[in-house]
Amino acid sequence: MPDAETLEPSAYAAEGDEQQTDVAIVGAGPVGLFAIFECGMLGFRCHVIDSMDVAGGQIAALYPEKPIYDIPGYPEIEGIELIRRLEEQAAPFRPVYHLGEQVREVTRTEDERWRLTTSGGVRVNAKAIIIAAGVGAFAPNRPPLDDLEAFEDTSVFYMVKRREDFRGKRLVIAGGGDSALDWTNSLAELADKIFLVHRRDTFRGAPESVSQMTALVEAGKVELVVPYQLHALEGEDGQLHGVVVRGTDKDKTIRRLEADTLLPFYGLKAKLGPIAEWGLNLDRNHIVVEPGTCQTNVPGIFAIGDITTYEGKLKLILQGFSEAAVAAHAIHPLLRPDERLKFEYSTAKGVPTL
Amino acid sequence: MPDAETLEPSAYAAEGDEQQTDVAIVGAGPVGLFAIFECGMLGFRCHVIDSMDVAGGQIAALYPEKPIYDIPGYPEIEGIELIRRLEEQAAPFRPVYHLGEQVREVTRTEDERWRLTTSGGVRVNAKAIIIAAGVGAFAPNRPPLDDLEAFEDTSVFYMVKRREDFRGKRLVIAGGGDSALDWTNSLAELADKIFLVHRRDTFRGAPESVSQMTALVEAGKVELVVPYQLHALEGEDGQLHGVVVRGTDKDKTIRRLEADTLLPFYGLKAKLGPIAEWGLNLDRNHIVVEPGTCQTNVPGIFAIGDITTYEGKLKLILQGFSEAAVAAHAIHPLLRPDERLKFEYSTAKGVPTL
Repeated sequence: MPDAETLEPSAYAAEGDEQQTDVAIVGAGPVGLFAIFECGMLGFRCHVIDSMDVAGGQIAALYPEKPIYDIPGYPEIEGIELIRRLEEQAAPFRPVYHLGEQVREVTRTEDERWRLTTSGGVRVNAKAIIIAAGVGAFAPNRPPLDDLEAFEDTSVFYMVKRREDFRGKRLVIAGGGDSALDWTNSLAELADKIFLVHRRDTFRGAPESVSQMTALVEAGKVELVVPYQLHALEGEDGQLHGVVVRGTDKDKTIRRLEADTLLPFYGLKAKLGPIAEWGLNLDRNHIVVEPGTCQTNVPGIFAIGDITTYEGKLKLILQGFSEAAVAAHAIHPLLRPDERLKFEYSTAKGVPTL
Repeated sequence: MPDAETLEPSAYAAEGDEQQTDVAIVGAGPVGLFAIFECGMLGFRCHVIDSMDVAGGQIAALYPEKPIYDIPGYPEIEGIELIRRLEEQAAPFRPVYHLGEQVREVTRTEDERWRLTTSGGVRVNAKAIIIAAGVGAFAPNRPPLDDLEAFEDTSVFYMVKRREDFRGKRLVIAGGGDSALDWTNSLAELADKIFLVHRRDTFRGAPESVSQMTALVEAGKVELVVPYQLHALEGEDGQLHGVVVRGTDKDKTIRRLEADTLLPFYGLKAKLGPIAEWGLNLDRNHIVVEPGTCQTNVPGIFAIGDITTYEGKLKLILQGFSEAAVAAHAIHPLLRPDERLKFEYSTAKGVPTL
C-alpha cells in the first residue's frame, strides 16, 4: 500500500483548471464502477467521465428494472440495484464523477501523463486511462431526411428537456414505441396541435399508453397519421413550417402537416464517438487489447468491458469485472514503479483508506 | 438452447454403475459452483466432485465467517454466505454433488468422453472436465515421525469424525492452534487421559479456548506437556502404546507419555494430489491453460480459478468467475457441434430449464 501521505487530498486538488488524479475512467457503467474499486484496492484515485447524466451505462439506459441472472452470487438482481451496490462498493475510494460529459480530446502531456478534455470543458490529468465505454455513447437514431441538420436543436429535438418549451407549439411526434406514445400523452395538454406519425397501424408501446393516446385521438387532441413515414422538411433559417409525410401502404399518399416542431423518437443507438479518433487499434468498433493486461496499442490507455475485443472475449458484465482487476494490476507499475505488488486476500487486507 | 427432450433425466441416469453427464467439475469452491451456473446457462448438466465434505473450497476450509470485500456488487459478504448464494444460483440446473470424494483416476473412453473414478468408487462419465480445484485437495500436515504410516487410521488420526470413538482412551493431542485446543476441551469429558503437547509455552488459539483448556489443566483433567515436540512412536501392529516427546528448550528432555491414541493438529496443507498425474502441463503446481478458452494441453480438459496459470492471471475469485464463463463457452462446440452459440443477455434470455 502507498503511504497515506502520497494520497493526501491536496495532491488531487485542481491545479489551475485541471484536475489531477491517478486514473481517468471513461464510462460509468457497471464495469467502469467496479474499476474504481479495483484501482482503489491498489491505492489509486479515480475520476470517472460519462456522457449520460447518471451512472449505470447500458443498464440505466436500457433495462434499469429488469432482473439480471448472471452476476455471480446474485441468483437474480434488478439492474439498477446492481449499479447502486457497485457505487456503494466504490464509494470508500472517493471517486470524482463527471456525468453528462463526453470526452472530446485526449492529449499526451510532457511528463507522460494524459489530459482529457470533456464537452463541458472539464480537464482531467491522469497517469492512465481506462476506457469502459461499453457500446459507446448513446445517441438518438436520426431520420434520413434532407437538410435535417439545419433544423436540429431549433425545430427538431430528440429529447424533451423541459415540457414548457413545447407549450402552444404545433408538434409532429414520430415513432411507434414508448417514447413517442409517452410524450404524445404528456404534451397533449400543452401543445396547440400534435400529429403522431407512425409507419405502421399498430404501436409497440405499453397497452396502457396506447389506450391513453387513443382516447386523446378520440377527443380530438391528437391527430393520428398512420401508416405514414417522414418524407421531407419545409422551412427556413432553422425554423420548420411543415413536415411532409408519405404513406407506407401501396398508395404512397403524400401529406403535408403544418407544424413548427418535430420530435422523432426512433430509439437510441450506440456510437463510439471521439474514442474512434484516439489512435487505438479497432476491430469493428471494438478496441483491441492484450488480454493479460487490457492495455491497448497505446501504452497507458487500457480498455475493459463490452468495448474490448480479444480472443475468447465474451460480452458479459462478469468478464468486464475481471478485466477491471486485470487493468488495475497492469496500471500498478506505471503509478508505483518502485513498489512490488504483493498479493493479499481482501479478507486479510480489508479495504484500504485513500 | 437445446431441446428439453435432449435433457430428459433418463439421459442422465446411471448406466450400469457409471453416471452420465455433460461436464464433470472437479472442485466445489466458489469458482466450481459458478461453473455449474455458466454451464447450465448454455444447457449443460454437471456433476461436481470435491474431496471436502461440504461445498465452499478454501472459503469453507479457511475463512467461512470472514468478510470478503472484492466480490463485485457486494461491498462486504461473509465467505459462507457467498457460497450459499452461489449454490442457490446453481440449483436450477440440478447439479449432482459427490462430496467427500477425491478423483483418483481419469481415463479417456472409446467414444471420446472421460471417465472419472473417485476414492469412494463413484464413476462419472462426462464429455468435458473442468478442474476448479483451487490449491488442490486439503490434506493434514503430518508430523515427521518414523513409522507414522503404520499407526495412521488405527491409532493416529488427523480429524475427529465421531467423538465417541475416543471415549476411555488415553490421548496425546499435539498442536498449538484452535483445533488442538478445541478438541482438548471437547474430548476432556470422554477421554481417560489427555496429554496436550505443544512446542511453545503459549497457544495461538482463541483466548476463550485457552482459558477453558487452562481450567481443565488446573482441574487435573488435562496434562500440559510444554514446550515439547513429538519425537517417536512406540507400539506394534498399528496399536500405539506410548508417544515419546522431546523438550524444545535447551535441556532437550525426553519424556514418554503412556497413550494409545495420537491426534496431531498441525493444520492443513493443499496438495495437488492425483491431478498432477493426468498428463497436464504444469508450472509450479499450477495448470497451464489457454486464457481464451481455459483449455489445458489435453483437449476436453479445462481448468479455472486459482489452480490455473497464464499471462495476467490473478488469484481473485472474481477472475475465476469469468474463467467459468470462458470454459463453458469453449465447451459448447464439444457438446453441441451443430449448434451456433447466439449471444443473449441473461435479462432477455432468463434462466433456462434443464
